[in-house]
Amino acid sequence: MENQLVTKIKENYQIVFEEMGLLDQAFTHSSYVNEHRNLHLCDNERLEFLGDAVLELLVSQYLYRQFPEMPEGKLTKMRAAIVREDSLAEFARECAFDQFIRLGKGEENSGGRQRAALLCDLFESFLGALYLDQGLEAVHRFLQTVIFPKVEAGAFSHEMDHKTKLQEVLQRGGDVLIDYRLIKEEGPAHERIFWTEVYCDNQLIGQGTGRSKKGAEQAAAQNALQELKE
Amino acid sequence: MENQLVTKIKENYQIVFEEMGLLDQAFTHSSYVNEHRNLHLCDNERLEFLGDAVLELLVSQYLYRQFPEMPEGKLTKMRAAIVREDSLAEFARECAFDQFIRLGKGEENSGGRQRAALLCDLFESFLGALYLDQGLEAVHRFLQTVIFPKVEAGAFSHEMDHKTKLQEVLQRGGDVLIDYRLIKEEGPAHERIFWTEVYCDNQLIGQGTGRSKKGAEQAAAQNALQELKE
Repeated sequence: MENQLVTKIKENYQIVFEEMGLLDQAFTHSSYVNEHRNLHLCDNERLEFLGDAVLELLVSQYLYRQFPEMPEGKLTKMRAAIVREDSLAEFARECAFDQFIRLGKGEENSGGRQRAALLCDLFESFLGALYLDQGLEAVHRFLQTVIFPKVEAGAFSHEMDHKTKLQEVLQRGGDVLIDYRLIKEEGPAHERIFWTEVYCDNQLIGQGTGRSKKGAEQAAAQNALQELKE
Repeated sequence: MENQLVTKIKENYQIVFEEMGLLDQAFTHSSYVNEHRNLHLCDNERLEFLGDAVLELLVSQYLYRQFPEMPEGKLTKMRAAIVREDSLAEFARECAFDQFIRLGKGEENSGGRQRAALLCDLFESFLGALYLDQGLEAVHRFLQTVIFPKVEAGAFSHEMDHKTKLQEVLQRGGDVLIDYRLIKEEGPAHERIFWTEVYCDNQLIGQGTGRSKKGAEQAAAQNALQELKE
């Protein structure tokens, strides 16, 4: 399986790791380390810490240069849309990284291989490992293949913040009162689900659920935008 | 005044800008641009956007290497303590950057030159300008003078998270119930102040105020820690 990964990143991205241990570590989840204590492995969490910052800089620099007239507020929103969990998890899937992460059995059985948070961390760990192995320019080249063409195609310009978008749309005809109401929350603390409704001048216009209050509000706004379009 | 800045950063940090316009821009606050529209200046906000990410990467990389055994959670906390507003504002003051920022009259008269948020942004803008002018290695050298020795001296290891620290201290003798109670909030939304009390097993052990609920809780925890020491 690991050889397949090596072949894949060589063929798809012309990347060959000098220090193979770094690549292994990037694809080792803490649940796997915990289940194989005798192997004395390192999980990918520290690499993720580093990779997160590498990604942040390269995306910032790219946006700064790509959009020379864009004000800081908009740059910040766009960066947030690109580096958010769902986006990074999707990039990890596109690179087929989800096939190669080493998981513990519990994590595997509970669907960890499909979990956005885990895949997002994996993507960042890979960037951290690549940065340590080959430097900033190599990570930049990788992102030029995987992320930047999508930005240029407008994938992050429109849907980045549903709440802001909804406000813009609704207030075109004059001032209205938009409020988000938390209807219900359920489940244990570490996997709590929130139900939110969004109202415009006290009329229900959308509903959404999410893992956080903010996420549920974004989902409700997105739902309202869709309803408005139809 | 600008010449003084040029001399200062040359003497203190051996930095000479190739593109002087970048240095000027880093020291130009939006309030100054707004009051001198005829000059068609650029404010420092875009440079701040970039500098923020440059700082994040260099601090992350430094911590990653400096503390090879430190788990990700602790690295993240330490990074947050170093790059937080108050810390960066203090670095800006130590570099005497506050003397050289160009402010509008309104901002000047309302004490902008002492405001932590403004000085934090200024520090990041300078890093962004230096990065564009001379690359990552130059910013790294600058941080090696200004920030990293303080990390090595332990300036960020201890006081980074008072709530965690308080919990550690109080629970040494066994399980206790610690809770933070919001007592009062006052002032308009953009400058609201929160009063918080912290209780251990229903006994008041500290009080604090802050610009946010979290800030007030940290202040209350810090106060409790101080009281415990005395």
